Amino acid sequence: MADLKIYPTILPLTRDSVLRAHELISPAIHRTPVLTCQTINRLASAPLSDTPTQPAEVGEFPIHLYFKCENLQKIGAFKIRGATHAVCRLLDTPAAEEVRRVGVVTHSSGNHAQALALAAREAGIPCTVVMPTISMKNKIAGTQGYGARVVFSGSTAREREAVVAEVQKENGAVLIPPYDHPDIIIGQGTAAVEFMDQVGAMLGESSVGLQAIITSCGGGGLLAGTAVACAGTGVKVFGAEPQKDGANDCERGLAAGKRITEVKTLTVADGLRTPVGEWNWRVISDHEKVDGVYSVSEEEILAALRLVLERMKVVVEPSGVVPLAVVLFNRSFRARVRQLWKEEGEVNLGIVFSGGNVSLEKLGELCASA
Amino acid sequence: MADLKIYPTILPLTRDSVLRAHELISPAIHRTPVLTCQTINRLASAPLSDTPTQPAEVGEFPIHLYFKCENLQKIGAFKIRGATHAVCRLLDTPAAEEVRRVGVVTHSSGNHAQALALAAREAGIPCTVVMPTISMKNKIAGTQGYGARVVFSGSTAREREAVVAEVQKENGAVLIPPYDHPDIIIGQGTAAVEFMDQVGAMLGESSVGLQAIITSCGGGGLLAGTAVACAGTGVKVFGAEPQKDGANDCERGLAAGKRITEVKTLTVADGLRTPVGEWNWRVISDHEKVDGVYSVSEEEILAALRLVLERMKVVVEPSGVVPLAVVLFNRSFRARVRQLWKEEGEVNLGIVFSGGNVSLEKLGELCASA
Repeated sequence: MADLKIYPTILPLTRDSVLRAHELISPAIHRTPVLTCQTINRLASAPLSDTPTQPAEVGEFPIHLYFKCENLQKIGAFKIRGATHAVCRLLDTPAAEEVRRVGVVTHSSGNHAQALALAAREAGIPCTVVMPTISMKNKIAGTQGYGARVVFSGSTAREREAVVAEVQKENGAVLIPPYDHPDIIIGQGTAAVEFMDQVGAMLGESSVGLQAIITSCGGGGLLAGTAVACAGTGVKVFGAEPQKDGANDCERGLAAGKRITEVKTLTVADGLRTPVGEWNWRVISDHEKVDGVYSVSEEEILAALRLVLERMKVVVEPSGVVPLAVVLFNRSFRARVRQLWKEEGEVNLGIVFSGGNVSLEKLGELCASA
Repeated sequence: MADLKIYPTILPLTRDSVLRAHELISPAIHRTPVLTCQTINRLASAPLSDTPTQPAEVGEFPIHLYFKCENLQKIGAFKIRGATHAVCRLLDTPAAEEVRRVGVVTHSSGNHAQALALAAREAGIPCTVVMPTISMKNKIAGTQGYGARVVFSGSTAREREAVVAEVQKENGAVLIPPYDHPDIIIGQGTAAVEFMDQVGAMLGESSVGLQAIITSCGGGGLLAGTAVACAGTGVKVFGAEPQKDGANDCERGLAAGKRITEVKTLTVADGLRTPVGEWNWRVISDHEKVDGVYSVSEEEILAALRLVLERMKVVVEPSGVVPLAVVLFNRSFRARVRQLWKEEGEVNLGIVFSGGNVSLEKLGELCASA
C-alpha cells in the first residue's frame, strides 16, 4: 500500500477523475497511435483449429481489432501515465514545497522504475528507485539515464520494501507504488480515454465506436484504470493473463471470490508476474466494471509475439501481447466475442499493447522458440 | 521503361499531380503515424566521436526529428502508394474495360510484388508477378496470399524481363514497373504530403513546420516522389544510400554528372541494390529539387537498425533505416544540417521509414552483428 500521509485527498475511482487526469498529463506524454491489421482481423474470427497457434485463414464473422500502441509511449510503456499523474497530484497539494525537497521513491525492476524516473525529472524533483541487485543492466542504466538515483536491494518483496523504508527514513521521500494506488490506476486509465476518442474519429460519428477493450493484468493498474475510464460508457472491459505456474491469479481469484495475494511464476510475460493489488482488486472484482479475465499458455503468447513483429512491424514485450493471445487462442473469450457479435451485429475490439521494453537479444531468443 | 501504350496521358511531375494522387489513393492506404524520439534527437545533434557508431550524448544544437512510419503501411512499405496510384490511373482511362480483362504484370522480388498484388486485388483485376526462382519463400507466399499469380524466372534483369514479355504476349497484361514510371513516382510522393500535414499539425500554425525530408534511394521512386511533392514548398529533400560495393550509384552519378546504369552490390539494405531509373534520375539530378544524396557503411546501417528497434520499438527493414544512419553518422550531411540550423535557427527534419519487411530470423542475425 502507498504511503498516503502526504496526500490531502484520495481521488474517487470514476471516469471523471480519469478525464481530469488526462488533461493534466497530456502535455507530458505521447498520444500514441492506434493501428489496425487486416490479417490479424481475419485470424481473430477464424474457427479455432486443433493446432492452437495455427488458426485457419477464413473468418467466421467479422471482427475489427484496434491496437493502442503504448509500446510507442515515452519510456516504452503505459507506466509513464500513472507515474506522471501521481507526481502531478503530489505537486498540486499544500505540501508541494516539501515534495520538491524530499522527492519520490519506488521499488521496481521493470517499466515503473523508468517511468517514475522520467516523471520526476520532468517535474524537477529528486527520485530514488530501489532495484534488485540482479536487475537487467540495461534497465538499471535506463533508470539512471533518466536521472534517478538507484539503490540496490535483495530480490524478494520484503527485502525491497526494507530498503524503501530506509530511503524514506533517510530523506523523507514519498513512495509512489507501481500499481496499488488510486492516482496510478486513474493515470493508467487515460490510455482508454484516448483509445475511445481515436477509434471514434477513425470510424466516424455514425458508428457505434469501440465496444470493448482488453488489456493485460499483472498488478492490475492498467486493467483497473481502463475499467474506471470505461465505467458508464457501455464499453466492455476484459483482462488477460498468462497461465504458467498459476500466473492467472486474477482469473483464479475471481472464480474463488477472493483476491490471491501470492504468486510465484516464471512466465515469459515478466511484467505480469505480480498478484493483483488491493485497490486494483476492488475495481476488477466488480463485474459491472470488468466483464471477465482470461488466460493463455506460454506457447500462445510467443505465437502472438511473432505475429505482431512480423505482420504489424512493432516491437511489443511478451507481457504486452497477452491480450492479443487471448483474442486469438482462448476458446471461452472467443465464445464471449461471438455472443457480443450476435447481440450487437458487429465487434470493434480494442487491444492495448502495453509496452515494448524487451532487449533484442531476448527477442531473438523468444522468436527462435516461437 | 514502362509499357505506356495503354496510357492516354503521362502526368506532369508536379506537386499538383501528387496532391491529386493523394486524394485518389487515400481510401485504400493507411495514413501512417509520425513518431518522435528524444533520445535519437540528442544523438543526432551530438558531436561525432571517432567511434562512428557511438555518438556522444550531448547535443551540439537542437534538431527535431520526425519519423514517417511507412513500415506500418499496408503490405509493410510505401510501395502500396505507387502501385495503387498506377492501378487507379489505368482504370481511369477509356481502356479501363480492357485493363480489367487483361490485368497487370510486374517483376519484383521485393515490396513492389506484394504492393501490386494487393492493389490489383482491391481493384478486382488480375495480377501476375514474375519472381526469381531464388526469392524468399515468405515473399512468394505473401504475394500469392494477396491473390496474385506468381510466375518464376531466372534472377538477372534480362531473364525477368523476358518472362514478363512472355506473360504480356500471352494475356496482354499492362506492365507496372517498380519505380521507373511517373505514376509510381507521383504515388510514392503522397507520403511526403501527409508527412508535411502531420508535422504541421503537431507543431501548430506558428511553427515553420517540416523544413527538410530525407528518404532512402534505390530505384529512386520514393526520393523522386518526395522531391516532386516538396517542389515549391521550401522543404528541402535529401537522399540516402548504402556505400557497399558502389551501391551509392546516385551519389556517384551526381558527382559525375551522369546516371549510373549498373550496380552489383550485396549491401544489407537489399531494397537499395538497384540503380536509379531514368524518370527518377531526371528529378533527382535537378539540384532545385534534391539538395544532396549521402551514403553510409554497413556498420552504420546496422547501428541505426538496432537503435530503432530498441528505442523506438518499431520494426524497420535495413533499407528503411539508411536515412537515419546518414543523419547520425555522415559528416557531410551533419555539416549541411548545421548550416541549415545557422540559416533558419531551428531544424525540423523528417525521416521516412520506408518499410518493415524483414523476417525475424534475418533480424536476429542482423542484430547479433550490430
